[in-house]
Amino acid sequence: MKIIVIGANGTIGKAVSKRLEQEGHELIKVGKSSGQYQVSIEDPKSVAELYRKIGSFDAVVNASGDLAFAPFADITQSQWELGLSSKLMGQVNLVQQALPFIRENGSFTLVSGVLSDEPIFAGVAATMVNKALEGFVQAVAFELPKGLRINLVSPTVLEESLPAYGAFFKGFVPTSGARVADAYLRSVAGIQTGRVYAVK
Amino acid sequence: MKIIVIGANGTIGKAVSKRLEQEGHELIKVGKSSGQYQVSIEDPKSVAELYRKIGSFDAVVNASGDLAFAPFADITQSQWELGLSSKLMGQVNLVQQALPFIRENGSFTLVSGVLSDEPIFAGVAATMVNKALEGFVQAVAFELPKGLRINLVSPTVLEESLPAYGAFFKGFVPTSGARVADAYLRSVAGIQTGRVYAVK
Repeated sequence: MKIIVIGANGTIGKAVSKRLEQEGHELIKVGKSSGQYQVSIEDPKSVAELYRKIGSFDAVVNASGDLAFAPFADITQSQWELGLSSKLMGQVNLVQQALPFIRENGSFTLVSGVLSDEPIFAGVAATMVNKALEGFVQAVAFELPKGLRINLVSPTVLEESLPAYGAFFKGFVPTSGARVADAYLRSVAGIQTGRVYAVK
Repeated sequence: MKIIVIGANGTIGKAVSKRLEQEGHELIKVGKSSGQYQVSIEDPKSVAELYRKIGSFDAVVNASGDLAFAPFADITQSQWELGLSSKLMGQVNLVQQALPFIRENGSFTLVSGVLSDEPIFAGVAATMVNKALEGFVQAVAFELPKGLRINLVSPTVLEESLPAYGAFFKGFVPTSGARVADAYLRSVAGIQTGRVYAVK
C-alpha cells in the first residue's frame, strides 16, 4: 500500500514508519518542517495542497497534532485554540480533504491519547480534544464513502516520552513506541472501522 | 439558591426554569436576545461581563449552544466553527469565567445530547462537540475550586422538538422537556460531580 505518514519524524511517527516499512508498504513521510513533504494540518488548504501533490494513495496515518497543558483557571484563549485547531481540526482536515484523492477501501488512522479517559492536572483541554476525536471517528465512520475506514489510536504515555512528560504521568504504566505501532498497523491492515484502539 | 439560567427562553430552558421555580429557587434568566440579561456565550468577555453585572450566585445552568448539521464531505469551515465556538467553547466560557463570581459549593450544569453516542447522518460535528463536552466535564470536575460541582445533561430528541427535528431522529423514542428538567434539577440539587446524565 501507498501510505502517507503525517508527523513521521516524531516519537510515534518513527515507530509507526518502521513497522509499516517492515510490512513492505511504500511510505510518503510528511512533517511540519521535515520529511518528503511539509504540511500545516491546521490549514485545510495546506492539507488539500499536500494531497494534490501526492496524487492518489491508500491510507493516511497521523502521528501529529499539538495541544496545550495548563491549570483550568489559567488556560488562555490561544491555548484552547491550539488544541482545537491542531490536534482536533487538524486531524479532521486530514480526513475531509483526502476524500477526493484517497483510493477505494482506503483507511485513516488518527491519534488521541489516554487522557481522554484518565484526566490529569492541567489536562482539561487534552481530555476535551481527545474525547472530541473519539466522537468524530465514531460518527464519521458511518458516513465515509468508497468503503473507506477510520480508526483512532489512543496511547498511554510512551517510555520514550518519560524524560519530557513523566512528571505529568506519575504512576501511569508507560507503553512503547513499538506497541503503539502495532495498533496503527492493526488499523491499516484490518477490516474494522469507527474503533478506538487503546494502547495501555 | 440564586441560579442563572442561560437560554431560558428555549424549549429546554423553559422547562428547566419552570421546574427550578417550582422548587423555590431565585432565577436570573439570560438569553441571546431575551431575558433579564443578554449574553454571547462564544465571547468570554461577554460572559465575564454578564457575571460581573449579576454579582454572586449559586449555580449556572445552561440550555443554549448552537451547532451545524451537514453531510461530512460538505461541512464548511464556518459550520465546524459554529459548534466549536458556540456549543463547545461557549459552555467552557460559562464555567471558566464564572470562577471569580460563583459561591462556594456552587454548581454548573451543561448540555450535550444523544448524538454523542448515537451518530446520525449529517451529525458528525454534533457527535464530536457533544463528546468533547463529556471530556471537558469529566476532566474539569477534578480541578474546580471552592467545592464547585459540574455535570452534563445529555437529552435525546424532545417531543416538543419533533416538528422541527423529527426527520433527523426517525425511530428515536422522544423524551419530554419535563424529564430533561428532572436531570437538570438532579444536577443542581445533588452531590455528584463529573457526571453525564443521559435522558432517554
